[in-house]
Amino acid sequence: MGREINKDTVLCMSLAARPSNHGTRFHNFLYDELGLNYIYKAFTTTDLGAAIAGIRALGIRGCAISMPYKEECIQYVDAMDDSAAAIQSVNTIVNAEGHLRAYNTDYLAVAHLLAEHEVPRESTFAVLGSGGMAKAVVAALRDAGFREGTVVARNGQTGAALAEQYGFAWQPELGDSRPQLIVNATPVGMAGGPGADDLPVPPEAVDAAKTVFDVVAMPALTPLIRRAQAQGKKVITGVEVSALQAAEQFVLYTGVRPTEDQVRRASEHARRSS
Amino acid sequence: MGREINKDTVLCMSLAARPSNHGTRFHNFLYDELGLNYIYKAFTTTDLGAAIAGIRALGIRGCAISMPYKEECIQYVDAMDDSAAAIQSVNTIVNAEGHLRAYNTDYLAVAHLLAEHEVPRESTFAVLGSGGMAKAVVAALRDAGFREGTVVARNGQTGAALAEQYGFAWQPELGDSRPQLIVNATPVGMAGGPGADDLPVPPEAVDAAKTVFDVVAMPALTPLIRRAQAQGKKVITGVEVSALQAAEQFVLYTGVRPTEDQVRRASEHARRSS
Repeated sequence: MGREINKDTVLCMSLAARPSNHGTRFHNFLYDELGLNYIYKAFTTTDLGAAIAGIRALGIRGCAISMPYKEECIQYVDAMDDSAAAIQSVNTIVNAEGHLRAYNTDYLAVAHLLAEHEVPRESTFAVLGSGGMAKAVVAALRDAGFREGTVVARNGQTGAALAEQYGFAWQPELGDSRPQLIVNATPVGMAGGPGADDLPVPPEAVDAAKTVFDVVAMPALTPLIRRAQAQGKKVITGVEVSALQAAEQFVLYTGVRPTEDQVRRASEHARRSS
Repeated sequence: MGREINKDTVLCMSLAARPSNHGTRFHNFLYDELGLNYIYKAFTTTDLGAAIAGIRALGIRGCAISMPYKEECIQYVDAMDDSAAAIQSVNTIVNAEGHLRAYNTDYLAVAHLLAEHEVPRESTFAVLGSGGMAKAVVAALRDAGFREGTVVARNGQTGAALAEQYGFAWQPELGDSRPQLIVNATPVGMAGGPGADDLPVPPEAVDAAKTVFDVVAMPALTPLIRRAQAQGKKVITGVEVSALQAAEQFVLYTGVRPTEDQVRRASEHARRSS
């Protein structure tokens, strides 16, 4: 924080039930790095409608939307970008002079990473989970041309609905399936969670896959990613998703695209104590 | 700005039609000086109701209210402190866990300065002007026990109403009156204004007074204050009002009272480029 706040400083923010330091550290690092007169701060609220109306009335430039507001906020924005409309889930609001447009940069990040890592769209795949991130992944896969896949989710209601919406199959368990691409969009492997030390699929399924994609970002090397790396698989990590979706938010808020090196350093800075 | 913003950083702000850097520089200077995890930023709005509801919903700790919102905001707060209720004019909102209480720290500052400078309450006085600051001054004088005074204002409607409300006389011009205390609450003498080089009263009135009080804060030495000082009068300046009312806001927001030296340095820092 080498700069001094003045009347022209632009505020960006986040709304989450339990704010973390991650976004605050990521964005403020890049504002400093790029010399932009912006500041970023995390908020929570007990009145989402008034909070979003306040973003509009105060000219707050952008807002990251986290759990549990990703669907509820839709009624309060003025327009939905395709990225959010496709999955009816918002993680970013951009305020252009009082007009609030909603985006989903998780979707954008997943789509970008599938292309960047050149995952063949002929691959068979399994997406584990049926929550907000699973929706972003399944929509990105469909939109990238993937055709043969399965949503694997114990929750039959949300799992089957998600699969059906995008024309894929649903299974409650992976069982004997051996897809070429495995995407974990469950909390299994997340630090501090009940399945922190577990794999979300049988080890044999990891060994049979060509590409393994974990959206869990903390730790960077989940049990799933570690096993896949040990087996020489192509891996895509949650750290990549997290950094890229935050970078897309940064571009939407500021109009400035940081370099890959800047994004990497901002992400490392954000992860250090969040 | 030696600190880094994190999820626990508290935001305070201001609302004005034309935001300046003054409050932002004053408060952030003291947050740094005292090591408080706060930031301060100026905002404007075209929707005052939504802006104030947003302050409540986002847990923004405090908000300075400037022209032209000082009366309009009353309908949006939950409670009025005596300082604001007395003059039906608000310059400060404090948010205690969603409950918004309105204050007028101009009133508090004027009352404090009358006592600190030991202006005898038996003094005859004239208050020049009938706007928001004149209301604060007249109410503070009445509440300090001053009994013999005149509101001098060309606007007969607001001037007579203000005088009548507090039991004082009204005159459109000072004329031959020679009050012991003269308080300028008009913009005459303000840098960049049409009367920047003028006295708000005939020079003989300055020479006949014992105490001269100017609420104009920019420049620090207005023509009125310069003449009064040259004549060896006791003077109270707008810089004192400005610093003291901001310091009272600071105490309301943070619960911490800065020292006089800290307030003086914060005020100098704020005035340097606002």
